[in-house]
Amino acid sequence: MSAGMPHRYPQAEIDALYRAIRERRDMRHFLPDAVDPALLERLLQAAHHAPSVGFMQPWRFIRIRDDGLRRRIHALVEEERVATAQALGEREDEFMKLKVEGILDCGELLVAGLMDGRAPHVFGRRTMPQMDLASLACALQNMWLAARAEGLGMGWVSLFEPTQLARLLAMPAGAEPVAVVCLGHVPAFYEKPMLEQQNWAARRSLHELVSDDKWPGGEE
Amino acid sequence: MSAGMPHRYPQAEIDALYRAIRERRDMRHFLPDAVDPALLERLLQAAHHAPSVGFMQPWRFIRIRDDGLRRRIHALVEEERVATAQALGEREDEFMKLKVEGILDCGELLVAGLMDGRAPHVFGRRTMPQMDLASLACALQNMWLAARAEGLGMGWVSLFEPTQLARLLAMPAGAEPVAVVCLGHVPAFYEKPMLEQQNWAARRSLHELVSDDKWPGGEE
Repeated sequence: MSAGMPHRYPQAEIDALYRAIRERRDMRHFLPDAVDPALLERLLQAAHHAPSVGFMQPWRFIRIRDDGLRRRIHALVEEERVATAQALGEREDEFMKLKVEGILDCGELLVAGLMDGRAPHVFGRRTMPQMDLASLACALQNMWLAARAEGLGMGWVSLFEPTQLARLLAMPAGAEPVAVVCLGHVPAFYEKPMLEQQNWAARRSLHELVSDDKWPGGEE
Repeated sequence: MSAGMPHRYPQAEIDALYRAIRERRDMRHFLPDAVDPALLERLLQAAHHAPSVGFMQPWRFIRIRDDGLRRRIHALVEEERVATAQALGEREDEFMKLKVEGILDCGELLVAGLMDGRAPHVFGRRTMPQMDLASLACALQNMWLAARAEGLGMGWVSLFEPTQLARLLAMPAGAEPVAVVCLGHVPAFYEKPMLEQQNWAARRSLHELVSDDKWPGGEE
């Protein structure tokens, strides 16, 4: 097969990538141990090597070093957790039992956001301005996979009111917080996505999600 | 080091992942050879193992098999390419010289979109509804990395008017196209991001994009 595929990696390297993709988890249970600064730098470099629309590199990262700031971020998330539970109606109690973040426990806390001044970047964004967010998500996915391979857990928390978090971090006008990122050592990686283990939702079959020349799942 | 890091992969596996992250490129130059269906299935499975907010798995994929449909998608993208060039003002000519897509050349064309019926999914989205797009972007980044390791090129094209593409594909109300995805064999992978090679934009230094406890890059 590789005779016709000159750019293919050796099978062991391909397998390693698929292993990280398969074993990556959104983690909420952490050990308090510190994250090695050189390892954190590798993870941030992995993020920075993501694709970005028009090569705009819209991602920005704030390391939360101050404990008071970490606690204020946690309080914002806790407020939104309660508001989300109420919005869920009949699943409120079930939701409140889930552990949805490890902000106070993880070794390293980051906030990832979109830079200010994005409006002039119209390459790939004239009709799809939200592609800046897509680029940041690709960066965080790189970091997530790299963290898994390096043996660190990562969790992406999006339970917060973005204007409040922006104010807390004194972000400039036009910048937007997108993720509170928990990084750190973990006791174990979940065997399956935690929300699947806890029966919040089931994994769909891929074949329901793909179809030829028309939208998947329709009866027509 | 690994004594204290029980979940760390062997160094060769970590290196393989970083290699894919470093060597992945947004490709626009393709060879016409077909993509092996088993390989395409592996790439779609990689996408489907992405994280998703509240485990909602909002991604849907349409394989474009019909040549007429492929040409109509290309025409939509060409229309937006011209509109983008005009919006760029003084960089119009420079932009028009760039190759921005390989829709008619690639072995396999997909459209990736967000499912309809997303509004009830408020877990992680009550204040941040755009997290569904972030999940789809993570899925496409998984596919991109897997394609690179498998020796296939991938390009994410976002130059289109989404309502027109949705109509062309008869998407249900509430569904949204996000990416025209070119997949296929390539003559070579670019040494650097094509937009960097062509001097459209330069890679930023990571250190400008990260800071402690406050927004990066400010003077204060």
